[in-house]
Amino acid sequence: MSTAILLISSPDQKGITAAVTNFIYQNNGNIEHADQHIDSNLNIFFMRIEWSLEDFSIPPSKLKTAFKPLADKFSMDWSLHFSGEKEKMAIFVSNKYHCLYDLLHKYKQGYLRCKIPLIISNHRQTKPIADYFNIPFFYSFKNSKSKKKAEAKEISLLKKEKIDSIVLARYMQIFGKNFVDNFRNKVINIHHSFLPAFAGKNPYRQAYRRGVKIIGATSHYVTEKLDKGPIIQQGTTGISHRDSLLDLKHKGQDLEKSVLSRAVQLHLDKKILVYKNKTVVFD
Amino acid sequence: MSTAILLISSPDQKGITAAVTNFIYQNNGNIEHADQHIDSNLNIFFMRIEWSLEDFSIPPSKLKTAFKPLADKFSMDWSLHFSGEKEKMAIFVSNKYHCLYDLLHKYKQGYLRCKIPLIISNHRQTKPIADYFNIPFFYSFKNSKSKKKAEAKEISLLKKEKIDSIVLARYMQIFGKNFVDNFRNKVINIHHSFLPAFAGKNPYRQAYRRGVKIIGATSHYVTEKLDKGPIIQQGTTGISHRDSLLDLKHKGQDLEKSVLSRAVQLHLDKKILVYKNKTVVFD
Amino acid sequence: MSTAILLISSPDQKGITAAVTNFIYQNNGNIEHADQHIDSNLNIFFMRIEWSLEDFSIPPSKLKTAFKPLADKFSMDWSLHFSGEKEKMAIFVSNKYHCLYDLLHKYKQGYLRCKIPLIISNHRQTKPIADYFNIPFFYSFKNSKSKKKAEAKEISLLKKEKIDSIVLARYMQIFGKNFVDNFRNKVINIHHSFLPAFAGKNPYRQAYRRGVKIIGATSHYVTEKLDKGPIIQQGTTGISHRDSLLDLKHKGQDLEKSVLSRAVQLHLDKKILVYKNKTVVFD
Amino acid sequence: MSTAILLISSPDQKGITAAVTNFIYQNNGNIEHADQHIDSNLNIFFMRIEWSLEDFSIPPSKLKTAFKPLADKFSMDWSLHFSGEKEKMAIFVSNKYHCLYDLLHKYKQGYLRCKIPLIISNHRQTKPIADYFNIPFFYSFKNSKSKKKAEAKEISLLKKEKIDSIVLARYMQIFGKNFVDNFRNKVINIHHSFLPAFAGKNPYRQAYRRGVKIIGATSHYVTEKLDKGPIIQQGTTGISHRDSLLDLKHKGQDLEKSVLSRAVQLHLDKKILVYKNKTVVFD
Repeated sequence: MSTAILLISSPDQKGITAAVTNFIYQNNGNIEHADQHIDSNLNIFFMRIEWSLEDFSIPPSKLKTAFKPLADKFSMDWSLHFSGEKEKMAIFVSNKYHCLYDLLHKYKQGYLRCKIPLIISNHRQTKPIADYFNIPFFYSFKNSKSKKKAEAKEISLLKKEKIDSIVLARYMQIFGKNFVDNFRNKVINIHHSFLPAFAGKNPYRQAYRRGVKIIGATSHYVTEKLDKGPIIQQGTTGISHRDSLLDLKHKGQDLEKSVLSRAVQLHLDKKILVYKNKTVVFD
Repeated sequence: MSTAILLISSPDQKGITAAVTNFIYQNNGNIEHADQHIDSNLNIFFMRIEWSLEDFSIPPSKLKTAFKPLADKFSMDWSLHFSGEKEKMAIFVSNKYHCLYDLLHKYKQGYLRCKIPLIISNHRQTKPIADYFNIPFFYSFKNSKSKKKAEAKEISLLKKEKIDSIVLARYMQIFGKNFVDNFRNKVINIHHSFLPAFAGKNPYRQAYRRGVKIIGATSHYVTEKLDKGPIIQQGTTGISHRDSLLDLKHKGQDLEKSVLSRAVQLHLDKKILVYKNKTVVFD
Repeated sequence: MSTAILLISSPDQKGITAAVTNFIYQNNGNIEHADQHIDSNLNIFFMRIEWSLEDFSIPPSKLKTAFKPLADKFSMDWSLHFSGEKEKMAIFVSNKYHCLYDLLHKYKQGYLRCKIPLIISNHRQTKPIADYFNIPFFYSFKNSKSKKKAEAKEISLLKKEKIDSIVLARYMQIFGKNFVDNFRNKVINIHHSFLPAFAGKNPYRQAYRRGVKIIGATSHYVTEKLDKGPIIQQGTTGISHRDSLLDLKHKGQDLEKSVLSRAVQLHLDKKILVYKNKTVVFD
Repeated sequence: MSTAILLISSPDQKGITAAVTNFIYQNNGNIEHADQHIDSNLNIFFMRIEWSLEDFSIPPSKLKTAFKPLADKFSMDWSLHFSGEKEKMAIFVSNKYHCLYDLLHKYKQGYLRCKIPLIISNHRQTKPIADYFNIPFFYSFKNSKSKKKAEAKEISLLKKEKIDSIVLARYMQIFGKNFVDNFRNKVINIHHSFLPAFAGKNPYRQAYRRGVKIIGATSHYVTEKLDKGPIIQQGTTGISHRDSLLDLKHKGQDLEKSVLSRAVQLHLDKKILVYKNKTVVFD
C-alpha cells in the first residue's frame, strides 16, 4: 500500500507538530514514520512524516491543496511525495565503473526506489554496461571547447526525459552554473576523500602524499563551489604505510560504492532536508 | 530551563501522536525533541517526547495525573521524567578500573545527568579512587558462601540511598534473581565481547583462541540470563595475528569505556525503551 | 618484472631469518617484501618473503630444488610461488549476485591476480552474468538426493580445469568431506555475520531477533565444520532499531562484498598462512 | 628477559636484511620481531628488528660499537634501544583532562613502557591530579609576553630531568622553533580533527559548521608548521544532525584518548620511523 510523505522546514514555533499530526489523524491517516529535528541555534524546525493512504480521506490529487492552508499558517517550506511515485534518476559516469555497477545491481534488486531511464557518459565504452542492464545510453563528449554546448544538450535531454535527480557516479567533470541552477539539491556527487580534506583533483594522491592513516569518501549535493556542497554521507577506512597509491584506490572503491549508494537511497526515500549548506538526514 | 520527557510504548493505532502532541500544545508546551518508532511486525508504537516547561500550564507535580486519562485511552506503558531531576546511580566495580575512571571523569565534567552517591566494590583498593572523586565507598566482600548475604546487604544499602540505576563497570560478579527483580532494566553491564559471541568467562581469551579479526564490547541491561539482556550499545575494533592476548585486553579497554559510558548517558537521558529483550534507542 | 614468494612456517629457532635472507642475497636476489611473525606460545615461526627475479642466479624452474636443503634443515612447512603465475580460481554462486558482480568487476580491473575460467551455480539465471563477463558457466543442480553425485561431477570439472582455489560468493550450500579434503585451505567462503556469532542459517534474521546494534561479515576457509574454519577477514557496521530485517540485508551486502573481495585478494597475493584453525595475514 | 631493538632506514640495496640478520645470528641472538618496508618510489629501506639478549654474545654496552661498521657500510640512519630501558616522558596539559586521566591510568597499569617524572601545565588546578598519581608537577604560566621566557624555563627543566619525549595531552599552546628543534620527532600532539581537515583553532566548531557526518582525531609529531607534522595515528566516528557542538566534543573525547594513547604506546615501543613528513608504523 502506498504512503504519503511530507518534508517540512519552518521557523520553530509551538503547535506545528500537533497541527500536522492532527491534519493526518482527522483525515483518518495512520502515521508510519515521524521524525523531527530542531536546530535550536537557528530556531528552525524540520519534519519528515509518512502515513498510510489506506483509508485516508483526502485523495492524493487533492492533498497538496488541502495541506496548503496549514503550510501557509506556519510559513513552511515543504514538499509532498508519494511512495508509489518513482523518481526518474539519470546517472552520469566517466570510465570508472565500480559505482555504476553497484548502483545498477542495487537498482535491479529493487533497493533504489526510482526509475533509471538514462545513463550519460563521456566514454563510449560505457555503452555495453548500459546495454547489459537495459538502460538507454547517451554519449556526450566534452572538452574545454565543447563543454558549454554539450551541457546545454544534456540539460535538454534531461528535461525531455523529465529527470528528477542525477547521480554523478565518479563523473569527474565540473558542471556550469546553469546546470547546477536547473538541478539545485538534485545532483548527488561522490568525492573520494573525507571532505573537506583533499577537495579537488587526485584526492588519493593527496592523501598518499600527506601520509594520512585513514582515507574516506563523501557524497554531497553539487553546488557552484567544487566539493563544497551539503554533505549527505561519509565513510572512512584505515590504511597504513604498506598501502601504495594503487592500494588506496582499490580500498577506496568499496567506500565510494557504499557511501554513494546509501546517499542515493536516502535521497530517493525523501529522508534528506537541506539548509545552510548542511543536511538533516532522517535515516 | 527544565523540560519534561515522556517515554511511551503502546499498541499502534491511529491518532496517538496527534493526541500526545495536542496535549502538549493545548497546555502551551514547546516540543524540543520528538522521536517515534513503530515495530510493524509486532504493531507496537514507541515515542519519546521532550518539551519545555517554560509557560507550560500544568505544574510538574500535577502532570502525571493530567496525562493519565490519555495514557489509559491508548493503553500506554509510560513513564514521565524531568530534566531537572537527576537520577541516583550507583557503580559496582571489581579491580579493573578503566571504566570507573572514565565514568567518574565524565561525571565530574557534567556529561552524565545523574548523582553518584555510592561506589560498591569487592576490592578494598578501590577506596582511594572513590575518595579522590569524593564519592562514598562501600566494601562488599563476596565468595560463594557469603554471596547471598552480601547481596541482601547491598540491596538494603541501595534502597536506603534511593538508588535509581546501577552501572556494573567491569564488576564480573553474577547477581541473584532477587537483585535483578529489584532493578529490572536499571542495571547496565559492560561485556567485553561483541555479544552474542563470546558470552561468559574470559571473552578476550575466547576471541584470541578463535582467531577473530575484530573484537568488540557490548553494554546491556542485566537479566536473569548471563550476557543475554537487551543490548544498548556495541562497538568493535580490528585486530590481527600480531596482537597477543594482552594486546586484545589493552585495545578492548578503550572500546569498553566508550561503549559503557555512551550507554549510561543514553539511559540517563531517558533515550532507551525496552521491549521483547531488545531496545529502541533514540540517540 | 616477476617476483618469487616463499611462505614458510616452522618451529622457531635461531638463524632461520638469516638463513633465508642469505640464500636470497647470495643468489643475487633483491628482497621487496619480508614479513615474519612468531607465535611465542606455540613457538612457531612464520615468514613471507618476496624478492625480485631480475638478476637472480637460480632460474625459477630450479628454485624449489635449490631451496629444499635449507627447508629440510629447519623442518619447514613451505610453499613457493611466482607473481607471474596466476592461480586458477572458480566461483560458486547461488542466486544472490552482489558478491559476484563485485568480484568480476574487480577481476576485470586487474585487482585480482588470477584467472577465472569457471563459474558454477545451482541457478540457471546466473548464466547471463557469466556470459556478459565472458566466463564459462556450468549449471549444477543440487538437492538432497542429487548432492553427492553433483559434487563428484563438480570435483571432476574443477580438476579438469586445474582449478587452484574456489570462492563461495554467497553459495549457501554445504560441501561434503570429500570436496573439502580436495581443496583444503583453498575454498574461501563469506558468511554474513561476525562469526562466531550467528553461524548457520539466516544470520541476519538471528541478528535482528537478538537486537544487536552492529552486524558483520566474515570470510574464512571452509572446513568440515560449518562456519568454523580459519577466519581471514571480518567487517562490521552499525545498525539501529530503525533498521528492518530487509535493511540489515541491504546494509550487509556492502560489507560482504568488501570483506570477501579483500580475503580473495589476500589469498591470491599469497599473504595468508593457516595454522591451528587461525590465520596469519601479512597485509 | 630484555631485548634489543634496532630501527634502521637506509637507501635500499641488496643484502641489507641478510647482513643485519646474520649479525644477530652470528652473535647468538634470537629474533623475536622483524618488520621491514621499502618505499619503492623513493628507494628507501626501513627495518625494525628486535631480538633477545639472552645468550647474545655482545654485551649491551658494546653493541653500538659492534654494529657501527655494518651501519656505515649500508649508509644507515639508525638507532639502538633496549626494552629494559624506559624512556622519560613529560606530559604537557591545559585544563582539559580526559587524555591526562587516560594516559596516567594506562601508565599505572603498565601499558606504557616509560617513566613519567613530570607534568607541566598552564593551569594550577592540574596539580591535584598530578599529586593523586604521584607525579611531580610544574606550573608554567604563559601569555604572549611571557611565552618566550616560560618556554626557555620549560626546556631547561626538561633537560634537567633528562626527558626523552613529550606528550601534549590537549595542551593547546604553540611552541616556538627553539623548542621544536630540541625535541624533533619527540613531541606527540593530539589534534581533535581528522587532519588535514580542520587544522588550527576550534576544530569541532569548524566540523559542526561544515556539516560533516564523521569527526576524527589525529596524533602527530610536532613540527614548526601547526598541525602539519608526520601523522602517527587517526580515528573517526560517525555523527548526525542530532549532535550539537557539545555532543561533538563529548564523542570526540573518546577518540582523542584512544588515538593519543595508541600513538604514545607505539612511540615508546619504538615502532615508528619518520621520513619525508610521513611515518612508517610497525604495529
